[in-house]
Amino acid sequence: MKRLVLASASASRAGLLRAAGVEFSVHPAELDETALMAAMTGADAASVALALAEAKALAVSAALPGSLVLGADTVIALGGDLISKCPDMEAARTLLGRMSGQDHRLVSAAVLARDAKAVWRHAGPATMTVRPLSPAFVEDYLAAEGPAILSSVGCYHYEGRGAQLFEKVEGDYFSVLGLPLLPLLGALRQEGVIAS
Amino acid sequence: MKRLVLASASASRAGLLRAAGVEFSVHPAELDETALMAAMTGADAASVALALAEAKALAVSAALPGSLVLGADTVIALGGDLISKCPDMEAARTLLGRMSGQDHRLVSAAVLARDAKAVWRHAGPATMTVRPLSPAFVEDYLAAEGPAILSSVGCYHYEGRGAQLFEKVEGDYFSVLGLPLLPLLGALRQEGVIAS
Repeated sequence: MKRLVLASASASRAGLLRAAGVEFSVHPAELDETALMAAMTGADAASVALALAEAKALAVSAALPGSLVLGADTVIALGGDLISKCPDMEAARTLLGRMSGQDHRLVSAAVLARDAKAVWRHAGPATMTVRPLSPAFVEDYLAAEGPAILSSVGCYHYEGRGAQLFEKVEGDYFSVLGLPLLPLLGALRQEGVIAS
Repeated sequence: MKRLVLASASASRAGLLRAAGVEFSVHPAELDETALMAAMTGADAASVALALAEAKALAVSAALPGSLVLGADTVIALGGDLISKCPDMEAARTLLGRMSGQDHRLVSAAVLARDAKAVWRHAGPATMTVRPLSPAFVEDYLAAEGPAILSSVGCYHYEGRGAQLFEKVEGDYFSVLGLPLLPLLGALRQEGVIAS
C-alpha cells in the first residue's frame, strides 16, 4: 500500500481518516489562509474551499516529491459572506447570533496532489438550518464548549454538542465534519492507498 | 432539567446522546426482538423499527412511573428482507457478499414514552449504496473489525472503517449511527430535558 500525507494540522480530519482505516502521515501546510481568502472576495464557497485545499496540497506536495498529498478546507457562507474561524469567544457569540434561525451553506473540499500537481478534487456541500437560539442557550453552549470551539469554522462540532444548534441538515455528514470522506475513499482506492 | 432514561444497552446510542450534551441514565429493556420481528413478517422497515423502539420504551416506562423513556431501534431492509444482527463471522461474510454492489435501506426509529404511553415517535431513513466489494477486501475488513462488528445491524460502523463499504449514502447521518438525533433533540427540548 502507498502512504498518504495529510497536509493539515486538523485533529478532526486526522481522526476521520484514522477511524476509516486509512494510514497516513501528517505534514501541515504553512499557508496564509486569511490572505488567500481576501484575494478571492466574491468567489462562492465551493470555489474558495477547493482553492484553499489545493493550495495546501500543492505546497506540501512540492516539498515531498513522489508523495500523494491530501489538502482539505471547510468554508461556511452565511448571507453572502464567507465565514472564517472566530478569534475569540465574543466573536463566537456574535456569529451564533447571526446564524440563529438562518440557513448557512457549508462546503468541505479535498484535493489530492502529487509532484506539485493536483490529481483529484472534490467539494462536498451541505445546507445547515440553525434553529432560533435563545441568548441563554448561547451562553450555556459557549460555557460548555469553551475556547476549543474557536478551532472550528462556524463554532460547532456537529458530532458533539453542536448538534443542539440545528433543526435540519441536508448534505453529506462527513463534509460537515471536514472531509468529503466517501468520494475521497474512492480516490484513495484508485491511487492504491487503501484496498479495493 | 428533567432526566431521560435510555431503554437500550447500545454503546453507540449512549455515545451519541452523551456527545450531544444530553444527560440520561440507562435502563435496558428486556425484549425478545427476534420474536417481535418474526411476528411482523411483511411489514416495512420503518414500521418494524418504530414498533420495536416503542415496545422497548413502553416496557421500561411501565417499570419507572413518571420517567421519560427513550426506546430506539435500527432495521435494515435488503431486497425485500429485513436483516437482523449476524450471529457469527461466517454469517457476516455472507451478508457482506449479499450487500456488495447493492442498495439497502436503513431506518432508525426513536420513541419517547411516559407512564407506559408513547408521547413522541420518529423514524429516520437512509439509502446506503454499497460498492462492489472484492472477496479479498471482505476478508481484510472482517479481520480488521473482528467480532465487535456482530453487535451492529448490517455489520458496519459507518463512523469507522465501515465507511470503506460505501459508494454513496443518502439520508440522515445520525440515523445511520442508530438515532435520528436532530428530531429527537427537538422533542427533548419540548419535554424540558435539554435547554432551548
